[in-house]
Amino acid sequence: MQQEPADQEDVDWGHVRGQLLDLSLDIYHGAPNFPMDPKPGVIPHSTTSTLGYNMTQLVIATHQATHMDAPYHFLDEGLTVERVSLSACMGPAILADLSHKGPRQPIDIADLAPLAARIVPGARLILRTGWDSVLPEQRYFTDFPFVTLDLAKWLVGRGVTLLGMDMPTPNPTDWKEVHLILLGAGMVIVEGLCHLERVGAGPFWFCALPLRIRGRDGSPVRAIGVVAR
Amino acid sequence: MQQEPADQEDVDWGHVRGQLLDLSLDIYHGAPNFPMDPKPGVIPHSTTSTLGYNMTQLVIATHQATHMDAPYHFLDEGLTVERVSLSACMGPAILADLSHKGPRQPIDIADLAPLAARIVPGARLILRTGWDSVLPEQRYFTDFPFVTLDLAKWLVGRGVTLLGMDMPTPNPTDWKEVHLILLGAGMVIVEGLCHLERVGAGPFWFCALPLRIRGRDGSPVRAIGVVAR
Repeated sequence: MQQEPADQEDVDWGHVRGQLLDLSLDIYHGAPNFPMDPKPGVIPHSTTSTLGYNMTQLVIATHQATHMDAPYHFLDEGLTVERVSLSACMGPAILADLSHKGPRQPIDIADLAPLAARIVPGARLILRTGWDSVLPEQRYFTDFPFVTLDLAKWLVGRGVTLLGMDMPTPNPTDWKEVHLILLGAGMVIVEGLCHLERVGAGPFWFCALPLRIRGRDGSPVRAIGVVAR
Repeated sequence: MQQEPADQEDVDWGHVRGQLLDLSLDIYHGAPNFPMDPKPGVIPHSTTSTLGYNMTQLVIATHQATHMDAPYHFLDEGLTVERVSLSACMGPAILADLSHKGPRQPIDIADLAPLAARIVPGARLILRTGWDSVLPEQRYFTDFPFVTLDLAKWLVGRGVTLLGMDMPTPNPTDWKEVHLILLGAGMVIVEGLCHLERVGAGPFWFCALPLRIRGRDGSPVRAIGVVAR
């Protein structure tokens, strides 16, 4: 009973050349997360002096550190994470510079309007607020600038296929509604990005592939960008 | 104390266009692994009817399913997985078709000789044996065709930077020696690939990025290929 091959997809990601930027948060023992999430354990299992090699047991939530939400995170009938379109998770992307937003400030349609012409069906859109600089303070998880429900609906209307951000989640109060709007449209969300200040205003290339966790809701990812220089 | 940005690297991965192939094994509760590795648990933590969303706790070895070995896996002074060069983990790659090899047969220098001209410094080389078809039988972990120590040294001499394979590890008996040769040269190893029969003989584009697990030895990965069609 070999594992069935996954669907194949056609992609054209253009010429990928430039400076490779790591946009991912560290996974480590006791790293902060949302109060109700399972706490992260990074447990040495063997060492070079016991079994001859270093090996680690990870105990982590699927939504720890930089990670992807699959539609099944909020929708029992939604796509599970191993079935998310990988062509949506990689390719040319757009950065929205929202670094002027302070704590708890709304990010609304008007803030994205200058980029509207570039936000076309299939777009990968990344929201930069600089909020990752607050880590590891616990207010990282409560006081971030947030995506309004109106903006979420607008992004769905524009056909955005992947929404990334350096906040831990799009909205601290209307968290259920905003996820239902975005994930309900089949969008994937990448949360907990960092160091987006190194991505300029121009087009760049983004990659964040989820682990193939069968039948589940999300996955930690290694997210990167490639920026022309 | 914001996380320090990682080093930047210059990359040129060429024009990436074609058919996207998923080359990764599923992660699931009770999935097989090596006898001494921590057993994988995929544990539902919350559901839409408890907290309002599906959330999972993963308990997995850093070497479960398709994964990357960092030099620190066998070398206490070697690079840890979050520091591995990401430009080595993605880019043009070469497939060696070794699907004629049976169980426990050696893969030696002579088997790679036809590809020698393409195996140049910086090469990403993927070994296809078809061994993933044996899963989920436990003999997957013991009876696979294997990389000889001579071949390992030869690959180091050719300057291979990433070695991938559809076996669970390069060598079942000389496992320590083969890892010390490969990882000691700073190579990264991707083990447990699958469905390499879908990659043809021509050049293709490979990607397998490790999670940013601070200070540790390896990481599960989502490995993909892009093949021109």
